[in-house]
Amino acid sequence: MHQSTRTVNVGLIGLGTVGGGVFQLIESHAEKYRRAYGIDLRIARACGLDESRARELGVTAEQFTTDWRDVVSDPRIDIVVEVIGGEHPATEIFTEAFAAGKHVVSANKALLGRHMAELAGAASAAGVQLRCEASCGGGIPIVGTLEHDLTGNNILAIAGIVNGTTNYILSRMTTEGLGYEEVLADAQRLGYAEADPTADVDGFDAASKIAILSSIGFTTRITTDDVYMQGIRKISAEDIEVARELGYAIKMLAIGRRTDEGVDIRVHPAMIPASHPLAGVNGAMNAVYVVGDAVGETMFYGAGAGAFPTASAIVGDVMNLAEDISAGVKPLPEPAPFARELPIRNVADLETRYYVRLTADGTDGVATGATEVLNQHGVTVERVIPRENGSFALLTDTCREGNMFAALGALSGAAAAVEVANVIRIEDIADWTQGVEAN
Amino acid sequence: MHQSTRTVNVGLIGLGTVGGGVFQLIESHAEKYRRAYGIDLRIARACGLDESRARELGVTAEQFTTDWRDVVSDPRIDIVVEVIGGEHPATEIFTEAFAAGKHVVSANKALLGRHMAELAGAASAAGVQLRCEASCGGGIPIVGTLEHDLTGNNILAIAGIVNGTTNYILSRMTTEGLGYEEVLADAQRLGYAEADPTADVDGFDAASKIAILSSIGFTTRITTDDVYMQGIRKISAEDIEVARELGYAIKMLAIGRRTDEGVDIRVHPAMIPASHPLAGVNGAMNAVYVVGDAVGETMFYGAGAGAFPTASAIVGDVMNLAEDISAGVKPLPEPAPFARELPIRNVADLETRYYVRLTADGTDGVATGATEVLNQHGVTVERVIPRENGSFALLTDTCREGNMFAALGALSGAAAAVEVANVIRIEDIADWTQGVEAN
Repeated sequence: MHQSTRTVNVGLIGLGTVGGGVFQLIESHAEKYRRAYGIDLRIARACGLDESRARELGVTAEQFTTDWRDVVSDPRIDIVVEVIGGEHPATEIFTEAFAAGKHVVSANKALLGRHMAELAGAASAAGVQLRCEASCGGGIPIVGTLEHDLTGNNILAIAGIVNGTTNYILSRMTTEGLGYEEVLADAQRLGYAEADPTADVDGFDAASKIAILSSIGFTTRITTDDVYMQGIRKISAEDIEVARELGYAIKMLAIGRRTDEGVDIRVHPAMIPASHPLAGVNGAMNAVYVVGDAVGETMFYGAGAGAFPTASAIVGDVMNLAEDISAGVKPLPEPAPFARELPIRNVADLETRYYVRLTADGTDGVATGATEVLNQHGVTVERVIPRENGSFALLTDTCREGNMFAALGALSGAAAAVEVANVIRIEDIADWTQGVEAN
Repeated sequence: MHQSTRTVNVGLIGLGTVGGGVFQLIESHAEKYRRAYGIDLRIARACGLDESRARELGVTAEQFTTDWRDVVSDPRIDIVVEVIGGEHPATEIFTEAFAAGKHVVSANKALLGRHMAELAGAASAAGVQLRCEASCGGGIPIVGTLEHDLTGNNILAIAGIVNGTTNYILSRMTTEGLGYEEVLADAQRLGYAEADPTADVDGFDAASKIAILSSIGFTTRITTDDVYMQGIRKISAEDIEVARELGYAIKMLAIGRRTDEGVDIRVHPAMIPASHPLAGVNGAMNAVYVVGDAVGETMFYGAGAGAFPTASAIVGDVMNLAEDISAGVKPLPEPAPFARELPIRNVADLETRYYVRLTADGTDGVATGATEVLNQHGVTVERVIPRENGSFALLTDTCREGNMFAALGALSGAAAAVEVANVIRIEDIADWTQGVEAN
């Protein structure tokens, strides 16, 4: 154990769900941090808008402020924890904290998804650290793992179930055979989904997270705007049933893969083999599957949200900084590996297999006709699965996404008797280990 | 990216499977480490006993030596990587490297399982780091996760599938319905088990790993000798079949739990719910399940052995040190949190449920008689499962292990008609989240 030379002072900005968790975790565990790690960690200031909420949490009058500037300007404070979210005033908090020589720990995926390179660069230039373990995967230590533990590898692929709301909805649709709308309404009632579920169900939240994880894993610059997104609104109980019959689970995946043509970066529902570890991640739990060329396949599993899991990630970042500060050492600024810009591959160049569900009026030969249209566009149908009322599902061989959507366009135009109800990519994740060193 | 001020020199001791992997990984990825992290990492010396093996790996005449003292005494070398295993000369390598002011990165679970507290203390006293990510769980970043990322938590429980050989054997027994001896022979033929499988199948290897992980997670001193061990030799195809019928999988678990009476630390086969994430970890893969009071349930999954997965863990440790060294900063010695000694709970005080398989001669009333004997010792039988030829299995309610074994002793003594074929603990892992903060 180090002899602690001094107290480490934290300034907490945000006293909502996560901020409250951070406050309570540090206050209740301070004695443990002293005893086990020799670190004397204190919350010097805590900023929130609601003083009665602050009082309930146990924030003292001395700690409490409603003005974030009181926190970033406090000369005692070593580490600013920003858990208010959104772009403003978070950006100003980061900037002024850096200018004052303070490290920043943040859970702000929306801001970091768009501006990590600039913010990490600003921290590095100011000689301080910006840490963001809690921005991705809640309590799962995945940012630190990519940033510090798997650095011996070329990371080849990242596939995450990083949005608890969509995983909760798809899990319940799967176990209970219910429809999307019904489960969404229930999720909203239970607090698993927002009144406006757009950020979750259309993939924005997951896009921020995979942009951050891929930037770190591939040491390049990727922003949320680079991410191809497709949501889960069109997934039906029937899609899930067909998937199960075929040995697949449908999961909302956030995917980053290195390819020879650049980084393949996308968020969408996908069929994955039911035997894959990601397929067993259910409810609001999260998991991130990572393939490195040396380590091979890994997966990291845990609670993707919640006051205390998120606080665990934030306090982990704080403790990593505090270990140095407490011993009288200045934490080294993190390397900011976001200068390199690998190209982003166009999703039209994706090559994968597809599941296509078609509703039809029962006319003879519709499936054969559809198969021919796909064939003419270079898409081979591997299997036709008849469903009720003359409808059917097709499974294709591996083909280029551009060809696939051209084929579907032609199909919709050619045959009034058939309508494309849904298209889901089939991800053969086991093949992603190509490029892993043999052992 | 930092401006690298200087080259970081590694001295590699051991050129076997893992050492070869480390050599090849650093040599093939050096350009990546420079480009992505600004770290110029080189292998200055490489020590092995077999020069032709070294030549095949690409070790140059300048790098090669057969004397480990050439490595630890080389003034250029910053970091010594020890991958020879065993107690000697590994202990001397550690000691002399520390004395020479060099950091040590090691995969030596046998040595660290017994002597981590002393060795970590010696490193700390010398002002250098001892890192051992590769000692537990192969490529899975679990040591760093417990040491650096989950430090905000009180770790409540650790349960690992940390021995690939036993997991491979149990997995094949499960999927193919084969017996232990048959699968062991095949595993030996395929290189998944040693000619003398004792270290793996009797739990010694897993015991070292859970001693290391629990010491770090619970910030206390636990050694391999503290670990209660029971191997997998008695597990039969029938046990696995009964388990499956009851909704359980049988896994070789390495368990560390904090209890009010001390640390519960043990390695043995256990029945766990088939729906638990650990139950899906098959073949030679490893996983470590960790419960923290803030983060809740987490699991970390990956390859538990192999040249490149293990090299990934070692090079991760090397890169963490190299980041500082490369920037001209002396890495801070790790805190050595092994001073505190939580008591070790006696396994007789364990309270759990049990599966007991009894062979019997088919006499009427044997099951009833056995149930009565157990009852007299305070063990309630919850269910009797008749098997072929008059044999049967019992499931007990939660009881104290001391009572259970007293009951079984009495049973063996009392009834010539019945014989205890196997006893397997049933672990209701979901209950281990008691003590997790509500969210």
